[in-house]
Amino acid sequence: MQALIDAIRSQGRGIGSEIVKVDSFLNHRLDTGLLFEMGQAFAQRYAGDKPDLVLTVEASGIALALATAHALGDIPVVFAKKAPAANQSGDMAEEKIYSFTHGHECHIRVDLRYIPAGAKVLIVDDFLANGEALRGLIAILKRAQAQLIGVGIAIEKGFQPGGQKIRAMGIPLLSLAVIEEIRDGHIRFQDTVQQ
Amino acid sequence: MQALIDAIRSQGRGIGSEIVKVDSFLNHRLDTGLLFEMGQAFAQRYAGDKPDLVLTVEASGIALALATAHALGDIPVVFAKKAPAANQSGDMAEEKIYSFTHGHECHIRVDLRYIPAGAKVLIVDDFLANGEALRGLIAILKRAQAQLIGVGIAIEKGFQPGGQKIRAMGIPLLSLAVIEEIRDGHIRFQDTVQQ
Repeated sequence: MQALIDAIRSQGRGIGSEIVKVDSFLNHRLDTGLLFEMGQAFAQRYAGDKPDLVLTVEASGIALALATAHALGDIPVVFAKKAPAANQSGDMAEEKIYSFTHGHECHIRVDLRYIPAGAKVLIVDDFLANGEALRGLIAILKRAQAQLIGVGIAIEKGFQPGGQKIRAMGIPLLSLAVIEEIRDGHIRFQDTVQQ
Repeated sequence: MQALIDAIRSQGRGIGSEIVKVDSFLNHRLDTGLLFEMGQAFAQRYAGDKPDLVLTVEASGIALALATAHALGDIPVVFAKKAPAANQSGDMAEEKIYSFTHGHECHIRVDLRYIPAGAKVLIVDDFLANGEALRGLIAILKRAQAQLIGVGIAIEKGFQPGGQKIRAMGIPLLSLAVIEEIRDGHIRFQDTVQQ
């Protein structure tokens, strides 16, 4: 999506070969208009599949998920909570994921009462890199016996394997900006966004 | 706001004398339509003050802040990050707050580059109890030399001192639902919502 690519170009900061900081419009300050544009892009792609809810992970996925849910006619959002490991109670599904960014494991947890069996679910998140958060969310959807209709990502790091894994599983994936390379502070994008 | 009070009555769960769980529409699953209604209520109250941005705290304040910012014409949101204490760098403002709910101190942190001096700021949050998060956010706004125009709260616990503190400081406060008492699982509301 051109508006997102423009924002990354003008405000994003490439660090090393793997990190892009987008604190000024996506991860700390939110560009509200841009978020709703992104939400509309996901809605346009997935409205035909009639999702029942949008699933994401706190904290930075929440805004994008809400904007998407609004564009889909105010369907509910469920955000997985990041939490220390806990004894699993009957209704809670918990998955361990590894954060390459932060260099440690963390747990994400969803109350299964909020994901009805058979529900059609759209997953939305701000970043896709190694795909660990997605792997965890997909495992939780399996436990809920819900149906994943697709994934919407703001920024995919095309040089890391997450996107390829998701596509190889046959899951529809829309990434609004795909970064090909980060080098010397310069961010290069894929010419065509694969869907 | 009647729709919020109805949601708390039908879906909220009173625990002991101090806790109300609203995971099913505000803190884990989000009732998207209700969030945008709440955002419109805050916008209606504060639009005349022409806020430049909405400030909140991750994670559960983000959705409400985004809905409010949208209703105010897509002004930006800044959400304070909860983080371990850190050496303060030049642009970061950090405040220690005490979470009575969780029984421990935590730190909230805002990059001051995103709160311009002189900016008119509306603070929005999901809960107001002892007012610790608000105290931290207000201290950060002072350091930023920004102007607090008012506060919007979804659920105020009227039996805890946060709301009184804010009103005593002369800060405009709109709480959409004020809980008077939680007893034996029953939640009783103030008849009239003070503004």
